Amino acid sequence: MSTVDVHFLPSLTTPEALSGATLVVIDVLRATTTITAALAAGAKEVIPCFEIDEARRIAAELPPGTSVLGGERGGKRIDGFDLGNSPTEYTPERVAGKSVVITTTNGTKALRQCRLAAEVWLGSLTNLGSVVARISAKPTIHVVCAGTDGHITLEDVVTAGYFVLALNRLGDWTEGDSAILARVAAESCENDSARLRSNFTQSRGGHNLVELGYDADIDYAMRLDINSVAPRLELKEWRIRSA
Amino acid sequence: MSTVDVHFLPSLTTPEALSGATLVVIDVLRATTTITAALAAGAKEVIPCFEIDEARRIAAELPPGTSVLGGERGGKRIDGFDLGNSPTEYTPERVAGKSVVITTTNGTKALRQCRLAAEVWLGSLTNLGSVVARISAKPTIHVVCAGTDGHITLEDVVTAGYFVLALNRLGDWTEGDSAILARVAAESCENDSARLRSNFTQSRGGHNLVELGYDADIDYAMRLDINSVAPRLELKEWRIRSA
Repeated sequence: MSTVDVHFLPSLTTPEALSGATLVVIDVLRATTTITAALAAGAKEVIPCFEIDEARRIAAELPPGTSVLGGERGGKRIDGFDLGNSPTEYTPERVAGKSVVITTTNGTKALRQCRLAAEVWLGSLTNLGSVVARISAKPTIHVVCAGTDGHITLEDVVTAGYFVLALNRLGDWTEGDSAILARVAAESCENDSARLRSNFTQSRGGHNLVELGYDADIDYAMRLDINSVAPRLELKEWRIRSA
Repeated sequence: MSTVDVHFLPSLTTPEALSGATLVVIDVLRATTTITAALAAGAKEVIPCFEIDEARRIAAELPPGTSVLGGERGGKRIDGFDLGNSPTEYTPERVAGKSVVITTTNGTKALRQCRLAAEVWLGSLTNLGSVVARISAKPTIHVVCAGTDGHITLEDVVTAGYFVLALNRLGDWTEGDSAILARVAAESCENDSARLRSNFTQSRGGHNLVELGYDADIDYAMRLDINSVAPRLELKEWRIRSA
């Protein structure tokens, strides 16, 4: 039987434990939602960077006019960057055909744990069905939540639970303990949009965004299956492309 | 407003973060259930030890006939020890009036994180109401799950959720993200004993016990409020007594 587990933080697993597996990385507020939006808007690829200077350097090395520099620190757009980390900023006018070089606080860091995986997908509620369709035949799936500043955050766990629920509806899965916890959290709000909203706004990650006035980003991130792209990180090239 | 949070593993918090707070430590399969049973059976006190040799030495230093040596490694009774880690072994005939010196794999280690706390209680389903009655007026409560061999285990998180639920019924609490996740897990099985059983038997900790033939210990650990003692760790003396 196939197995699915969830890791509530990147630090709760290791590259070795994820070796050879199919991964779904989730930073639903907002990195993986925003990267999905960028690809849905026609971006050629997204290049995730850990550091601000690295992002600037990579963007500068690309041919003029072919890249867009995006990301946040403390939730806010970085000085001198073209775009922040709001999914709705990534419009076709701004990103179609371009390489998006992006750095975010939690989401891009979570990708560090993935280097030995067989496949790495970026999950959100907006692309749930598209990603699940690509992975549902795999034998071993790990869903890795990015968390917020090293702490477990509710919105990532609930989103991970939506992935476990969707997989369960397509087959029989042996669930790890944390997968069960995430699934039960998702079950509690999948037919209760007020509860889903509360999980996304009162959580550690959501609360920060509400404080910064990014309520519209939370609304966007809660919209199930509005994008049909499945973002996949090509590990050797270190590029995220729509698969 | 008072706050309650849950830590799914001891390693997800620090002594400093727990400084001055009221703690409930949970290793429901089986250390905190068994320690509760020992005190309910009339044990004078329980002395938790990290290492086997330390437990042997402390027991040997007590006056002859006044102590009982208990605990497990890999779930099994330790060679030369009087008792293992099954709650039903701790009968009045064996432990009444005695000092129980105990060492277990996960539960006693979780106590390491507690040294700066204001109060440390040991929680289980068997003493839920008794412990909650002692702590419900406190301003800041952290529930620390012991986990199994460094991994999150479902039965501890569900039990932590029962504590959050019980506190919620007595007052208004601001819940951390992990407290919400634990509470939702508890809500999903509090009126569904088959689901509670499945959470206790299929979990990382429960599965080990079923393999070892300790099903009866799981039955015991699932029984709500059968004991009226509230075990409290006196930090300076490093003794657990009924409070």
